[in-house]
Amino acid sequence: MTPRLFLDAELAAGSAVGLDADRAHYLRDVLRLGAGREVRLFNGRDGEWRAVVDAVGKRAVTLRLVARSRAPAPEPDLWLCFAPVKKARLDFIAEKATELGVSVLQPVMTARTIVERVNLDRLCANAVEAAEQTERLSVPEVRAPLALDKLLSAWPADRHLLLADETGGGRPVADVLATLDAAARAAPWAVLTGPEGGFARAELDAVGRLPTVHAVGLGPRILRADTAALAALAIWQAMIGDWRRATPRRWPDYATTQDA
Amino acid sequence: MTPRLFLDAELAAGSAVGLDADRAHYLRDVLRLGAGREVRLFNGRDGEWRAVVDAVGKRAVTLRLVARSRAPAPEPDLWLCFAPVKKARLDFIAEKATELGVSVLQPVMTARTIVERVNLDRLCANAVEAAEQTERLSVPEVRAPLALDKLLSAWPADRHLLLADETGGGRPVADVLATLDAAARAAPWAVLTGPEGGFARAELDAVGRLPTVHAVGLGPRILRADTAALAALAIWQAMIGDWRRATPRRWPDYATTQDA
Repeated sequence: MTPRLFLDAELAAGSAVGLDADRAHYLRDVLRLGAGREVRLFNGRDGEWRAVVDAVGKRAVTLRLVARSRAPAPEPDLWLCFAPVKKARLDFIAEKATELGVSVLQPVMTARTIVERVNLDRLCANAVEAAEQTERLSVPEVRAPLALDKLLSAWPADRHLLLADETGGGRPVADVLATLDAAARAAPWAVLTGPEGGFARAELDAVGRLPTVHAVGLGPRILRADTAALAALAIWQAMIGDWRRATPRRWPDYATTQDA
Repeated sequence: MTPRLFLDAELAAGSAVGLDADRAHYLRDVLRLGAGREVRLFNGRDGEWRAVVDAVGKRAVTLRLVARSRAPAPEPDLWLCFAPVKKARLDFIAEKATELGVSVLQPVMTARTIVERVNLDRLCANAVEAAEQTERLSVPEVRAPLALDKLLSAWPADRHLLLADETGGGRPVADVLATLDAAARAAPWAVLTGPEGGFARAELDAVGRLPTVHAVGLGPRILRADTAALAALAIWQAMIGDWRRATPRRWPDYATTQDA
């Protein structure tokens, strides 16, 4: 597979882009790409571009843009609002939510959230790496943590909210999503998941007062916070999001010499 | 929450059970439970039982069974057949698949599987820990790795197979599951996911010859092997499995003093 990098730079035919030190190191010392080798670039705005390595120096690597390989295309408008959890599981949420196509990663501080600080740089780095790997054209926006009451008081009137209600108070998730009207299906959405200890009752009541909330159950087993987030996102994508469209066959990119 | 342990022992009112060294250490030295403290036990056959700590010794801990707290109940007959991946992601698959209610964890060796050996003890330990945490009444059966052709040649005639087809050759997963007939919905099932490099074309063709296979697409993004496994399991549970039933409210167990 041709290496694929997210770059926050203008991408246009014929232009040259320089890589920052980390990316230069990765291409030169990890992938060992020399001049003339191909990479793919995306910036979240201009689709995906083919580029070739132009010059490899001790400090800098320069790429020359060749042609656009994928046109810009919108991705679902789906936020993940989640109570942050401890390190490995937080990395995991950022990676998986990016693969599952969220547009925003919004940490939410709740009564029983144990984690006090969120390393936003690390969250961003996980999102970028996953976006590169998962062939997205964008990287989710990583927002600063918000207290749940602040999130709710500023909640956009048109954004529907899938609340993972671990108390069993919600209807089965597939029932809820299968019976939405057309306006709800076309609306922007968010998934909200709580911390390992669950939401406090007063918090669930407050979330329940949003006019666009849908409290759902995710089955009879107790799910960890990261599992609930992932499961809700996957089901939303399958039933409401862009997994409903057939995906073109990927053989030309996929086939390898092992395929004989 | 009352600690919850899986024990491969008969569970019946009044009987006493001794813990193995690991479990004894966990109760005595990690949880610091003394005589009279309550635990919950399950063995995969007899439901869930309340027990109290009877005696705590240097080497042994004995529990006395009090009463059954949950009757035995069947769980969905859902296998996860998956190409093993590297350590942290394999731990993750075992944990998440257990939370998502699989009955069997079946590693499958495919043409592009890079991992050569699977640590079955580790897979079992992850499944047990997740089963304890997720409030299951059973632990998934962990099977020894099988080559894909062996798995297919012994495939049970009545077991339906959801194939995560990363080539884009499958129909959208929600379409496939929403249009199954009653016999297929009631059948035993399995989910099959490939290694990071995907299935070889000949492998997909061979799987496709099973009469009960359903090749599905999981959206336009490239999912890691662990993400594909989780996503497929969550969607199956939501649309076909036991997430379709409403779950009773769990407040009595859930409320804590933080809830005031």
